[in-house]
Amino acid sequence: MVKATIYRSALIAMALAAQASVAMGDGSAEYSHAPSYTSDGRLNPPADYREWVFLSSGLDMSYNEKAMASSQPVFDNVFVNPEAYRAFLKTGTWPDKTQFVLEVRSSSAKGSINHRGHFQSGAITGMEVHVKDTSRFQGGWAFFGIDGQSPAKQIPLTQACYSCHSAHGAVDTTFVQFYPTLLPIAQQHVTLSTAYMKDEAQAANTVH
Amino acid sequence: MVKATIYRSALIAMALAAQASVAMGDGSAEYSHAPSYTSDGRLNPPADYREWVFLSSGLDMSYNEKAMASSQPVFDNVFVNPEAYRAFLKTGTWPDKTQFVLEVRSSSAKGSINHRGHFQSGAITGMEVHVKDTSRFQGGWAFFGIDGQSPAKQIPLTQACYSCHSAHGAVDTTFVQFYPTLLPIAQQHVTLSTAYMKDEAQAANTVH
Repeated sequence: MVKATIYRSALIAMALAAQASVAMGDGSAEYSHAPSYTSDGRLNPPADYREWVFLSSGLDMSYNEKAMASSQPVFDNVFVNPEAYRAFLKTGTWPDKTQFVLEVRSSSAKGSINHRGHFQSGAITGMEVHVKDTSRFQGGWAFFGIDGQSPAKQIPLTQACYSCHSAHGAVDTTFVQFYPTLLPIAQQHVTLSTAYMKDEAQAANTVH
Repeated sequence: MVKATIYRSALIAMALAAQASVAMGDGSAEYSHAPSYTSDGRLNPPADYREWVFLSSGLDMSYNEKAMASSQPVFDNVFVNPEAYRAFLKTGTWPDKTQFVLEVRSSSAKGSINHRGHFQSGAITGMEVHVKDTSRFQGGWAFFGIDGQSPAKQIPLTQACYSCHSAHGAVDTTFVQFYPTLLPIAQQHVTLSTAYMKDEAQAANTVH
Protein backbone atom coordinates (compact mmCIF):
# COMPACT_ATOMS: atom_id res chain seq x y z
CA MET A 1 0.00 0.00 0.00
CA VAL A 2 2.88 2.35 0.82
CA LYS A 3 4.48 1.29 -2.45
CA ALA A 4 1.24 2.01 -4.31
CA THR A 5 1.08 5.48 -2.76
CA ILE A 6 4.65 6.20 -3.86
CA TYR A 7 3.77 5.11 -7.40
CA ARG A 8 0.73 7.34 -7.44
CA SER A 9 2.51 10.44 -6.12
CA ALA A 10 5.39 9.86 -8.51
CA LEU A 11 2.99 9.55 -11.42
CA ILE A 12 1.15 12.75 -10.64
CA ALA A 13 4.49 14.58 -10.38
CA MET A 14 5.62 12.98 -13.63
CA ALA A 15 2.40 13.95 -15.42
CA LEU A 16 2.79 17.56 -14.32
CA ALA A 17 6.45 17.61 -15.36
CA ALA A 18 5.55 16.16 -18.75
CA GLN A 19 2.85 18.76 -19.14
CA ALA A 20 5.38 21.53 -18.44
CA SER A 21 7.70 20.04 -21.02
CA VAL A 22 4.98 19.89 -23.66
CA ALA A 23 3.88 23.42 -22.83
CA MET A 24 7.27 24.69 -24.04
CA GLY A 25 5.90 24.19 -27.53
CA ASP A 26 9.34 24.31 -29.12
CA GLY A 27 9.46 20.70 -30.22
CA SER A 28 12.00 19.81 -27.55
CA ALA A 29 9.47 17.51 -25.90
CA GLU A 30 9.87 15.21 -28.90
CA TYR A 31 13.42 14.38 -27.83
CA SER A 32 12.49 13.60 -24.25
CA HIS A 33 11.11 10.22 -25.38
CA ALA A 34 14.58 8.79 -26.08
CA PRO A 35 15.98 6.71 -23.23
CA SER A 36 18.26 8.59 -20.85
CA TYR A 37 20.71 7.07 -18.38
CA THR A 38 22.70 8.06 -15.34
CA SER A 39 26.50 8.06 -15.66
CA ASP A 40 26.60 4.57 -14.13
CA GLY A 41 24.18 3.19 -16.73
CA ARG A 42 20.90 3.20 -14.83
CA LEU A 43 17.78 4.11 -16.84
CA ASN A 44 15.90 7.27 -15.88
CA PRO A 45 12.20 6.34 -15.68
CA PRO A 46 10.22 7.89 -18.58
CA ALA A 47 8.32 10.88 -17.22
CA ASP A 48 5.34 11.07 -19.50
CA TYR A 49 4.63 7.53 -20.67
CA ARG A 50 0.91 7.92 -19.94
CA GLU A 51 0.85 10.32 -22.91
CA TRP A 52 2.64 7.82 -25.16
CA VAL A 53 0.83 5.52 -27.56
CA PHE A 54 -1.20 2.77 -25.90
CA LEU A 55 -0.68 -0.61 -27.54
CA SER A 56 -2.92 -2.92 -25.56
CA SER A 57 -4.00 -4.20 -22.18
CA GLY A 58 -4.68 -7.64 -20.82
CA LEU A 59 -6.29 -8.96 -17.66
CA ASP A 60 -4.80 -11.73 -15.53
CA MET A 61 -2.48 -12.90 -18.30
CA SER A 62 0.14 -15.56 -17.60
CA TYR A 63 2.59 -17.40 -19.81
CA ASN A 64 2.79 -20.26 -17.33
CA GLU A 65 0.89 -23.32 -18.54
CA LYS A 66 -0.06 -24.33 -15.01
CA ALA A 67 -1.15 -20.91 -13.75
CA MET A 68 -4.48 -20.87 -11.91
CA ALA A 69 -6.83 -17.88 -12.29
CA SER A 70 -5.97 -15.18 -9.78
CA SER A 71 -8.44 -14.06 -7.15
CA GLN A 72 -7.03 -10.55 -7.49
CA PRO A 73 -6.36 -10.22 -11.22
CA VAL A 74 -4.30 -7.32 -12.51
CA PHE A 75 -4.39 -5.40 -15.78
CA ASP A 76 -1.23 -4.86 -17.78
CA ASN A 77 -1.11 -1.74 -19.98
CA VAL A 78 1.58 -1.34 -22.62
CA PHE A 79 2.70 2.03 -23.98
CA VAL A 80 5.36 2.88 -26.58
CA ASN A 81 7.00 6.22 -27.37
CA PRO A 82 5.16 8.01 -30.23
CA GLU A 83 8.17 8.23 -32.59
CA ALA A 84 8.65 4.45 -32.40
CA TYR A 85 4.94 3.85 -33.01
CA ARG A 86 4.96 6.03 -36.13
CA ALA A 87 8.10 4.33 -37.40
CA PHE A 88 6.40 0.94 -36.88
CA LEU A 89 3.38 2.04 -38.96
CA LYS A 90 5.78 2.80 -41.82
CA THR A 91 8.18 -0.15 -41.53
CA GLY A 92 6.58 -2.91 -39.45
CA THR A 93 9.47 -2.92 -37.00
CA TRP A 94 11.01 -0.89 -34.18
CA PRO A 95 13.61 1.83 -34.63
CA ASP A 96 16.58 2.29 -32.32
CA LYS A 97 15.72 4.10 -29.04
CA THR A 98 12.27 2.49 -28.86
CA GLN A 99 10.94 2.36 -25.30
CA PHE A 100 8.02 0.24 -24.12
CA VAL A 101 6.50 0.78 -20.70
CA LEU A 102 4.55 -2.05 -19.10
CA GLU A 103 2.33 -0.81 -16.29
CA VAL A 104 0.67 -3.39 -14.03
CA ARG A 105 -2.43 -2.04 -12.35
CA SER A 106 -4.85 -3.49 -9.84
CA SER A 107 -8.47 -4.15 -10.79
CA SER A 108 -11.87 -3.94 -9.16
CA ALA A 109 -14.97 -5.96 -9.97
CA LYS A 110 -17.75 -4.08 -8.19
CA GLY A 111 -17.52 -0.34 -7.78
CA SER A 112 -19.47 2.77 -8.70
CA ILE A 113 -22.14 1.56 -11.14
CA ASN A 114 -20.19 -1.43 -12.44
CA HIS A 115 -21.67 -4.85 -11.70
CA ARG A 116 -19.78 -7.23 -13.97
CA GLY A 117 -16.26 -7.85 -15.24
CA HIS A 118 -13.29 -5.77 -14.12
CA PHE A 119 -12.09 -2.20 -14.42
CA GLN A 120 -8.74 -0.63 -13.60
CA SER A 121 -8.61 0.92 -10.18
CA GLY A 122 -6.17 2.88 -8.06
CA ALA A 123 -2.79 1.36 -7.59
CA ILE A 124 0.09 0.49 -9.88
CA THR A 125 1.67 -2.70 -8.61
CA GLY A 126 4.65 -2.91 -10.95
CA MET A 127 6.36 -1.26 -13.90
CA GLU A 128 8.91 -2.41 -16.43
CA VAL A 129 10.64 -0.73 -19.36
CA HIS A 130 11.92 -2.53 -22.47
CA VAL A 131 14.47 -0.40 -24.34
CA LYS A 132 16.08 -0.82 -27.74
CA ASP A 133 19.50 0.79 -27.74
CA THR A 134 21.71 -1.19 -30.06
CA SER A 135 25.00 0.55 -29.31
CA ARG A 136 24.52 -0.03 -25.59
CA PHE A 137 22.94 -3.45 -25.00
CA GLN A 138 24.02 -6.92 -25.95
CA GLY A 139 21.26 -8.25 -28.24
CA GLY A 140 20.03 -4.69 -28.79
CA TRP A 141 17.37 -4.62 -26.08
CA ALA A 142 17.30 -4.39 -22.28
CA PHE A 143 14.68 -4.69 -19.53
CA PHE A 144 14.48 -2.49 -16.44
CA GLY A 145 12.14 -2.83 -13.47
CA ILE A 146 11.24 0.71 -12.45
CA ASP A 147 9.40 2.30 -9.54
CA GLY A 148 8.47 5.45 -11.47
CA GLN A 149 10.86 7.62 -9.49
CA SER A 150 14.43 6.30 -9.22
CA PRO A 151 16.93 5.41 -11.93
CA ALA A 152 16.83 1.63 -12.43
CA LYS A 153 19.51 -0.99 -12.97
CA GLN A 154 19.24 -3.25 -16.00
CA ILE A 155 17.65 -6.64 -15.33
CA PRO A 156 20.44 -9.22 -15.86
CA LEU A 157 20.56 -10.97 -19.23
CA THR A 158 20.18 -14.31 -17.47
CA GLN A 159 16.56 -13.52 -16.52
CA ALA A 160 13.71 -15.27 -18.32
CA CYS A 161 12.26 -12.08 -19.86
CA TYR A 162 15.14 -12.02 -22.39
CA SER A 163 14.97 -15.67 -23.46
CA CYS A 164 11.16 -15.69 -23.61
CA HIS A 165 10.89 -12.49 -25.67
CA SER A 166 13.59 -13.79 -27.95
CA ALA A 167 11.95 -17.21 -28.39
CA HIS A 168 8.36 -16.01 -28.83
CA GLY A 169 8.23 -12.28 -29.71
CA ALA A 170 6.44 -11.73 -33.03
CA VAL A 171 8.65 -8.78 -34.10
CA ASP A 172 12.22 -8.08 -32.98
CA THR A 173 11.78 -9.76 -29.53
CA THR A 174 8.54 -7.84 -28.79
CA PHE A 175 5.05 -9.29 -28.30
CA VAL A 176 3.38 -7.66 -31.29
CA GLN A 177 1.05 -10.68 -31.38
CA PHE A 178 -0.74 -9.03 -28.42
CA TYR A 179 -1.01 -5.58 -30.08
CA PRO A 180 -4.02 -5.82 -32.40
CA THR A 181 -3.38 -2.57 -34.28
CA LEU A 182 0.23 -3.52 -35.08
CA LEU A 183 0.03 -7.21 -35.97
CA PRO A 184 -1.58 -6.51 -39.40
CA ILE A 185 1.14 -3.91 -40.10
CA ALA A 186 3.86 -6.49 -39.38
CA GLN A 187 2.05 -8.98 -41.61
CA GLN A 188 1.96 -6.43 -44.46
CA HIS A 189 5.65 -5.64 -44.05
CA VAL A 190 6.62 -9.30 -43.61
CA THR A 191 8.55 -8.52 -40.43
CA LEU A 192 7.25 -11.39 -38.29
CA SER A 193 10.05 -13.36 -36.64
CA THR A 194 10.92 -16.92 -37.58
CA ALA A 195 10.43 -17.89 -33.94
CA TYR A 196 6.86 -16.57 -33.95
CA MET A 197 6.01 -18.14 -37.31
CA LYS A 198 7.22 -21.47 -35.93
CA ASP A 199 5.04 -21.09 -32.79
CA GLU A 200 2.01 -20.29 -34.93
CA ALA A 201 2.61 -23.22 -37.29
CA GLN A 202 2.96 -25.55 -34.30
CA ALA A 203 -0.28 -24.22 -32.75
CA ALA A 204 -2.11 -24.71 -36.06
CA ASN A 205 -0.85 -28.30 -36.27
CA THR A 206 -2.01 -28.98 -32.72
CA VAL A 207 -5.54 -27.87 -33.57
CA HIS A 208 -5.82 -30.20 -36.62
CA MET B 1 -16.86 -10.60 -39.45
CA VAL B 2 -17.32 -8.35 -42.49
CA LYS B 3 -17.96 -5.49 -40.11
CA ALA B 4 -14.76 -6.29 -38.21
CA THR B 5 -12.77 -6.29 -41.44
CA ILE B 6 -14.17 -2.89 -42.38
CA TYR B 7 -13.18 -1.55 -38.96
CA ARG B 8 -9.68 -2.92 -39.33
CA SER B 9 -9.12 -1.57 -42.86
CA ALA B 10 -10.54 1.78 -41.83
CA LEU B 11 -8.22 1.92 -38.83
CA ILE B 12 -5.10 1.16 -40.82
CA ALA B 13 -6.06 3.86 -43.32
CA MET B 14 -6.77 6.27 -40.44
CA ALA B 15 -3.44 5.49 -38.78
CA LEU B 16 -1.57 6.18 -42.00
CA ALA B 17 -3.50 9.42 -42.58
CA ALA B 18 -2.77 10.53 -39.02
CA GLN B 19 0.86 9.74 -39.52
CA ALA B 20 0.96 11.89 -42.67
CA SER B 21 -0.67 14.72 -40.74
CA VAL B 22 1.85 14.50 -37.89
CA ALA B 23 4.70 14.29 -40.40
CA MET B 24 3.81 17.80 -41.61
CA GLY B 25 5.52 18.98 -38.46
CA ASP B 26 3.92 22.41 -38.66
CA GLY B 27 1.78 22.08 -35.57
CA SER B 28 -1.39 21.81 -37.64
CA ALA B 29 -1.95 18.28 -36.34
CA GLU B 30 -2.75 19.81 -32.94
CA TYR B 31 -5.95 21.31 -34.35
CA SER B 32 -7.13 18.12 -35.96
CA HIS B 33 -8.17 16.84 -32.51
CA ALA B 34 -11.11 19.25 -32.28
CA PRO B 35 -14.43 17.71 -33.37
CA SER B 36 -15.38 18.34 -36.98
CA TYR B 37 -18.82 17.96 -38.54
CA THR B 38 -20.44 17.68 -41.92
CA SER B 39 -22.74 20.52 -43.02
CA ASP B 40 -25.75 18.50 -41.84
CA GLY B 41 -24.28 18.05 -38.33
CA ARG B 42 -22.83 14.56 -38.51
CA LEU B 43 -19.53 13.98 -36.67
CA ASN B 44 -16.48 13.06 -38.72
CA PRO B 45 -14.85 10.09 -36.99
CA PRO B 46 -11.53 11.09 -35.34
CA ALA B 47 -8.73 9.81 -37.58
CA ASP B 48 -5.91 9.31 -35.11
CA TYR B 49 -7.52 8.45 -31.78
CA ARG B 50 -5.13 5.50 -31.27
CA GLU B 51 -2.42 8.16 -30.78
CA TRP B 52 -4.51 10.06 -28.25
CA VAL B 53 -4.13 9.64 -24.50
CA PHE B 54 -5.32 6.28 -23.16
CA LEU B 55 -7.43 6.64 -20.02
CA SER B 56 -8.27 3.07 -19.11
CA SER B 57 -9.62 -0.26 -20.21
CA GLY B 58 -12.03 -2.71 -18.67
CA LEU B 59 -13.02 -6.30 -19.45
CA ASP B 60 -16.61 -7.52 -19.60
CA MET B 61 -17.95 -4.48 -17.75
CA SER B 62 -21.69 -3.97 -17.37
CA TYR B 63 -23.78 -1.42 -15.51
CA ASN B 64 -26.72 -3.81 -15.42
CA GLU B 65 -27.22 -5.31 -11.95
CA LYS B 66 -28.51 -8.56 -13.38
CA ALA B 67 -25.88 -9.06 -16.09
CA MET B 68 -24.35 -12.52 -16.23
CA ALA B 69 -20.68 -12.99 -17.10
CA SER B 70 -20.20 -13.15 -20.86
CA SER B 71 -18.75 -16.21 -22.55
CA GLN B 72 -17.09 -13.90 -25.07
CA PRO B 73 -16.04 -10.92 -22.97
CA VAL B 74 -14.89 -7.72 -24.69
CA PHE B 75 -12.39 -5.08 -23.67
CA ASP B 76 -13.35 -1.41 -23.75
CA ASN B 77 -10.52 1.07 -24.31
CA VAL B 78 -11.04 4.78 -23.68
CA PHE B 79 -8.95 7.51 -25.32
CA VAL B 80 -9.18 11.30 -25.00
CA ASN B 81 -7.64 14.00 -27.19
CA PRO B 82 -4.27 15.16 -25.78
CA GLU B 83 -5.20 18.84 -25.32
CA ALA B 84 -8.20 17.85 -23.18
CA TYR B 85 -6.04 15.49 -21.09
CA ARG B 86 -3.47 18.21 -20.40
CA ALA B 87 -6.22 20.68 -19.49
CA PHE B 88 -7.68 18.09 -17.09
CA LEU B 89 -4.29 17.69 -15.35
CA LYS B 90 -4.30 21.44 -14.70
CA THR B 91 -7.95 21.98 -13.81
CA GLY B 92 -9.57 18.66 -12.86
CA THR B 93 -12.23 19.07 -15.53
CA TRP B 94 -12.79 18.96 -19.30
CA PRO B 95 -12.40 21.92 -21.64
CA ASP B 96 -14.77 22.62 -24.52
CA LYS B 97 -14.07 20.48 -27.64
CA THR B 98 -13.06 17.45 -25.55
CA GLN B 99 -13.52 14.18 -27.44
CA PHE B 100 -13.54 10.72 -25.88
CA VAL B 101 -13.36 7.62 -28.03
CA LEU B 102 -14.63 4.33 -26.63
CA GLU B 103 -13.31 1.36 -28.58
CA VAL B 104 -14.82 -2.06 -27.89
CA ARG B 105 -12.49 -4.87 -28.84
CA SER B 106 -12.80 -8.64 -28.80
CA SER B 107 -10.63 -10.73 -26.48
CA SER B 108 -8.88 -14.08 -26.57
CA ALA B 109 -8.03 -16.33 -23.66
CA LYS B 110 -5.57 -18.82 -25.13
CA GLY B 111 -3.24 -17.72 -27.89
CA SER B 112 0.46 -17.50 -28.63
CA ILE B 113 2.12 -18.17 -25.27
CA ASN B 114 -0.74 -16.92 -23.13
CA HIS B 115 -2.42 -19.51 -20.90
CA ARG B 116 -4.49 -17.48 -18.45
CA GLY B 117 -6.72 -14.43 -18.39
CA HIS B 118 -7.56 -12.43 -21.52
CA PHE B 119 -5.76 -10.28 -24.04
CA GLN B 120 -7.07 -7.98 -26.76
CA SER B 121 -7.25 -9.62 -30.13
CA GLY B 122 -8.16 -8.67 -33.69
CA ALA B 123 -11.53 -7.13 -34.16
CA ILE B 124 -13.18 -3.92 -33.03
CA THR B 125 -16.84 -4.67 -32.36
CA GLY B 126 -18.07 -1.15 -31.63
CA MET B 127 -17.00 2.49 -31.29
CA GLU B 128 -18.56 5.51 -29.69
CA VAL B 129 -17.49 9.15 -29.38
CA HIS B 130 -18.49 11.48 -26.52
CA VAL B 131 -18.01 15.13 -27.49
CA LYS B 132 -18.16 18.31 -25.46
CA ASP B 133 -19.22 21.21 -27.67
CA THR B 134 -21.21 23.61 -25.55
CA SER B 135 -22.35 25.96 -28.31
CA ARG B 136 -23.70 23.03 -30.32
CA PHE B 137 -25.26 20.48 -27.97
CA GLN B 138 -28.04 20.75 -25.42
CA GLY B 139 -26.42 19.89 -22.07
CA GLY B 140 -22.98 20.52 -23.57
CA TRP B 141 -22.18 16.95 -24.59
CA ALA B 142 -23.27 14.50 -27.28
CA PHE B 143 -22.75 10.81 -28.06
CA PHE B 144 -22.14 9.35 -31.52
CA GLY B 145 -21.92 5.70 -32.52
CA ILE B 146 -19.25 5.53 -35.22
CA ASP B 147 -17.97 2.88 -37.59
CA GLY B 148 -14.54 4.48 -37.98
CA GLN B 149 -15.23 5.54 -41.58
CA SER B 150 -18.48 7.42 -42.13
CA PRO B 151 -19.77 10.63 -40.56
CA ALA B 152 -22.15 9.70 -37.72
CA LYS B 153 -25.50 11.05 -36.58
CA GLN B 154 -25.85 12.13 -32.95
CA ILE B 155 -27.42 9.51 -30.68
CA PRO B 156 -30.81 10.98 -29.59
CA LEU B 157 -30.93 12.71 -26.19
CA THR B 158 -33.60 10.24 -25.10
CA GLN B 159 -31.07 7.37 -25.04
CA ALA B 160 -29.87 6.01 -21.70
CA CYS B 161 -26.22 7.01 -22.21
CA TYR B 162 -27.13 10.66 -21.52
CA SER B 163 -29.20 10.09 -18.37
CA CYS B 164 -26.75 7.52 -16.96
CA HIS B 165 -23.65 9.68 -17.54
CA SER B 166 -25.48 12.63 -16.04
CA ALA B 167 -26.67 10.68 -12.98
CA HIS B 168 -23.39 8.87 -12.25
CA GLY B 169 -20.44 10.53 -14.00
CA ALA B 170 -17.78 11.60 -11.50
CA VAL B 171 -16.78 14.76 -13.43
CA ASP B 172 -18.94 16.74 -15.86
CA THR B 173 -20.99 13.67 -16.95
CA THR B 174 -17.86 11.55 -17.62
CA PHE B 175 -16.83 8.35 -15.83
CA VAL B 176 -13.61 9.65 -14.29
CA GLN B 177 -14.20 7.13 -11.48
CA PHE B 178 -12.93 4.50 -13.95
CA TYR B 179 -9.79 6.48 -14.97
CA PRO B 180 -7.27 5.83 -12.21
CA THR B 181 -4.76 8.52 -13.23
CA LEU B 182 -7.45 11.23 -13.31
CA LEU B 183 -9.58 10.50 -10.25
CA PRO B 184 -6.89 11.82 -7.82
CA ILE B 185 -6.58 15.00 -9.95
CA ALA B 186 -10.34 15.59 -9.69
CA GLN B 187 -10.15 14.99 -5.94
CA GLN B 188 -7.35 17.58 -5.63
CA HIS B 189 -9.29 20.13 -7.66
CA VAL B 190 -12.60 19.35 -5.93
CA THR B 191 -14.36 18.88 -9.24
CA LEU B 192 -16.26 15.68 -8.40
CA SER B 193 -19.97 15.92 -9.20
CA THR B 194 -22.67 16.02 -6.54
CA ALA B 195 -24.27 13.00 -8.23
CA TYR B 196 -21.08 10.96 -7.88
CA MET B 197 -20.48 12.03 -4.28
CA LYS B 198 -24.03 10.93 -3.46
CA ASP B 199 -23.46 7.52 -5.13
CA GLU B 200 -20.25 7.03 -3.14
CA ALA B 201 -21.86 8.05 0.15
CA GLN B 202 -24.69 5.63 -0.51
CA ALA B 203 -22.26 2.79 -1.33
CA ALA B 204 -20.29 3.49 1.88
CA ASN B 205 -23.50 3.35 3.91
CA THR B 206 -24.46 0.06 2.32
CA VAL B 207 -21.15 -1.50 3.36
CA HIS B 208 -21.48 -0.50 7.04
